[in-house]
Amino acid sequence: MMIPALIDLGDGNADWRVFVGTAFLVGMISTLVAVATRGERPKFSQRLGFLIVTSVWVFATAVGALPIYFSSVNVTYAGAFFEAMSGLTTTGSTVISGLDALPRGILMWRSLLQWLGGIGIIGMVLLILPSLQAGGLALFHMESSDKSDKVLPRVNQLVGGLITAYVVLTIACAVSYQALGMSFFDAVNHAMTTLATGGYSTHDASMGYFDSNGLLIASTIFMALAALPFVVYIRAFLPRQFQFWRDPQVVVFLLICIVLSFAIAVTRRIVNDTPFGEALISSTFNLVSVITTTGYASEDYTLWSNAAVGIFFLASFIGGCAGSTAGGIKANRLVILFLVVRASFRKLVRPHAVIRLKYGNEDISPQTVQTVTIFFFLFFGTLLIATVLLTMFGLDLITAFSGTLTAISNVGPGFGQIIGPAGNFATLPDPALWTLSVTMLLGRLELVTVLILFFPSVWVD
Amino acid sequence: MMIPALIDLGDGNADWRVFVGTAFLVGMISTLVAVATRGERPKFSQRLGFLIVTSVWVFATAVGALPIYFSSVNVTYAGAFFEAMSGLTTTGSTVISGLDALPRGILMWRSLLQWLGGIGIIGMVLLILPSLQAGGLALFHMESSDKSDKVLPRVNQLVGGLITAYVVLTIACAVSYQALGMSFFDAVNHAMTTLATGGYSTHDASMGYFDSNGLLIASTIFMALAALPFVVYIRAFLPRQFQFWRDPQVVVFLLICIVLSFAIAVTRRIVNDTPFGEALISSTFNLVSVITTTGYASEDYTLWSNAAVGIFFLASFIGGCAGSTAGGIKANRLVILFLVVRASFRKLVRPHAVIRLKYGNEDISPQTVQTVTIFFFLFFGTLLIATVLLTMFGLDLITAFSGTLTAISNVGPGFGQIIGPAGNFATLPDPALWTLSVTMLLGRLELVTVLILFFPSVWVD
Repeated sequence: MMIPALIDLGDGNADWRVFVGTAFLVGMISTLVAVATRGERPKFSQRLGFLIVTSVWVFATAVGALPIYFSSVNVTYAGAFFEAMSGLTTTGSTVISGLDALPRGILMWRSLLQWLGGIGIIGMVLLILPSLQAGGLALFHMESSDKSDKVLPRVNQLVGGLITAYVVLTIACAVSYQALGMSFFDAVNHAMTTLATGGYSTHDASMGYFDSNGLLIASTIFMALAALPFVVYIRAFLPRQFQFWRDPQVVVFLLICIVLSFAIAVTRRIVNDTPFGEALISSTFNLVSVITTTGYASEDYTLWSNAAVGIFFLASFIGGCAGSTAGGIKANRLVILFLVVRASFRKLVRPHAVIRLKYGNEDISPQTVQTVTIFFFLFFGTLLIATVLLTMFGLDLITAFSGTLTAISNVGPGFGQIIGPAGNFATLPDPALWTLSVTMLLGRLELVTVLILFFPSVWVD
Repeated sequence: MMIPALIDLGDGNADWRVFVGTAFLVGMISTLVAVATRGERPKFSQRLGFLIVTSVWVFATAVGALPIYFSSVNVTYAGAFFEAMSGLTTTGSTVISGLDALPRGILMWRSLLQWLGGIGIIGMVLLILPSLQAGGLALFHMESSDKSDKVLPRVNQLVGGLITAYVVLTIACAVSYQALGMSFFDAVNHAMTTLATGGYSTHDASMGYFDSNGLLIASTIFMALAALPFVVYIRAFLPRQFQFWRDPQVVVFLLICIVLSFAIAVTRRIVNDTPFGEALISSTFNLVSVITTTGYASEDYTLWSNAAVGIFFLASFIGGCAGSTAGGIKANRLVILFLVVRASFRKLVRPHAVIRLKYGNEDISPQTVQTVTIFFFLFFGTLLIATVLLTMFGLDLITAFSGTLTAISNVGPGFGQIIGPAGNFATLPDPALWTLSVTMLLGRLELVTVLILFFPSVWVD
């Protein structure tokens, strides 16, 4: 909080007091909690673990919302909470219009929330969720390959490697952005929200503000890098050779990006008569932005054609790779589900065949299949129920459904007039913003971590 | 085909020649095929089974489309094929506007297609799919309980019982409709499309034409009866007592109907100031119509409120019970997925607990869970991919997505201006109609039956 405070102080903006005040408050509460919970440590249990992870995110959001709420930005606390949740979950939906005129401290605060949320989620998925056991979350274990593959022998080294990779990539991105024409402030902010696949911008027009194909290409590359499993970067520095194609999800993810980007560019060539080269750059940028769940836009791509809208809609479900900062269903789950379907079809036709399910070099356990199933069911169940809730608060079907989708996948922009890439979430009523905040949290914490707390039988001893 | 021919002949309409001509053609082709395939019977295999089931439906549709194509109705063959597919799959979407002025022969033909499609699907799910093996389709086995429960000792008796139940319910429905004010012709047509949960009407205004609360209530009851597993009706005549609540899907299905109908009625009381009694009758009628995948409408319910639209949208996914004429995801699958999620949550918290999955009195096998998973994945995968295809043919997102949804769930009306309950599919381009026809078939044949034919590895020996 001291960084935006110093920026605002330097700019002569009164908002610096808000950051200092909030920092003071947080420090006090933390001390009180630390004092209150001194003494013997409670027995660690699975459900306590889930409760702690969820509580930490909610508490961080509640605190992160304070500077926004008390600043010169005119939003309700629901709006500020939504903005902070959208930041920490690296979603990138915003209730603020008029970003260009905002004090730089608040802009930096939003970018920082996303950047910290990004490294937070990688750390959580690789380190905390697997230790919350095996069973239902074995997937993360496998996804990260942190143990079976012995990427790095020790947890400390893993954490160090991850943070190093994240910081190095962010700096590389910022340097590229500045070299391609962004101001230092814009370059730093956008680099942070690019690596977080968050998508907060310092301008209402998002990346479109800079009107530079070079920037679009650079941003496309860094968004794609941020959506790969971060373990890939640590592996790159190991004595063994670097083989990212050993992870099927990476190959599938990159293939999907290429195919869909080309498809959009082709439809634009046909429908809109856009020159193919130009169409390809902006199609790829916006498609990669949506599929990596970043959510930048270079223009209102929903105006291109119905076909483009259909592809962006599909991309909003897919998401990036597991073990990255991206959200969505994720490529590894799609690969596993496809393999399960294929195996079961073969089995139907040849009942006596012995079929082994392999993901890369590893066997897929029935436990993993069940975990993916449960995720899939919870994903679509939450999507539909939250959609109905939002229509109850008066939203039309397309806003409600695409708003829920963009929240659960942590993308950012939705579809339709109101929350499309050219709009924002400012006009939504407070109950809708609360619903979407919860949906973003659900999506970010892979649904199970939060929803399990609401099953009564989990609390019965 | 002789029934509509006689009706048109009686009415003095020239379309009777179309029916007679088509009947002659079909007879000739059948004879030729029978002659050509004389000789030794090929070895029966699973994939041959899937191929035959799919081919029979496609052939029946291609033939069923002929009278519509050659009649005085002005549609392309794609439109006629769509109309016949919508009939045989008991979907109820139509490309024809101006139903009230149509020759009665064609109207009767459409109703007959639905009625035959309805009994066809019950027969297929209960009798053919289980014998196509075990494995991936064990679910149907369990759903129908035809063997494990020994509902009736012999297949012949089962078939007889099903047909009897279907005919008796249709007659009871027709008698009720006529008693409540429909003409004899309307009563017979609507009874056939009610029991098939098809939803074809003889009037553009659907059930709204009759403007009678009594008819709405009667129709609601018969639609709900048609969406229950038909084995229930056979059981009712067995010496054992009649316990439909032993099947969890029946209880869940009826509960969902009641809760959602009430929810809509309440929102209409609040938003539209409609008197609660009146709101409850029409809310229940339209909700039951959508959730049983019938697709009648008493008015344009998408105008009631956003909240009502949200609930109808949710209902379009759910569908009726397995072993009935209804489509959709179906209540039994929702029950099983819910049980799997609950069990896995318990297991996460108490890793050493032994949890048995029970559906009613039966254990749920891992095989069944996998089958449900695969269905769920194929359902949403098909939904998204067909949506993208439709946007490629120029449809807007809401028409494309809700059109695919209504086709795969075999509901009938979609959402939005074009294909909502007050519109129809007449203005859609031919490629879109072909896509939707395939989607209806996929949904009706539970996806696996058709999609398995497109996996190359299934055809490798």
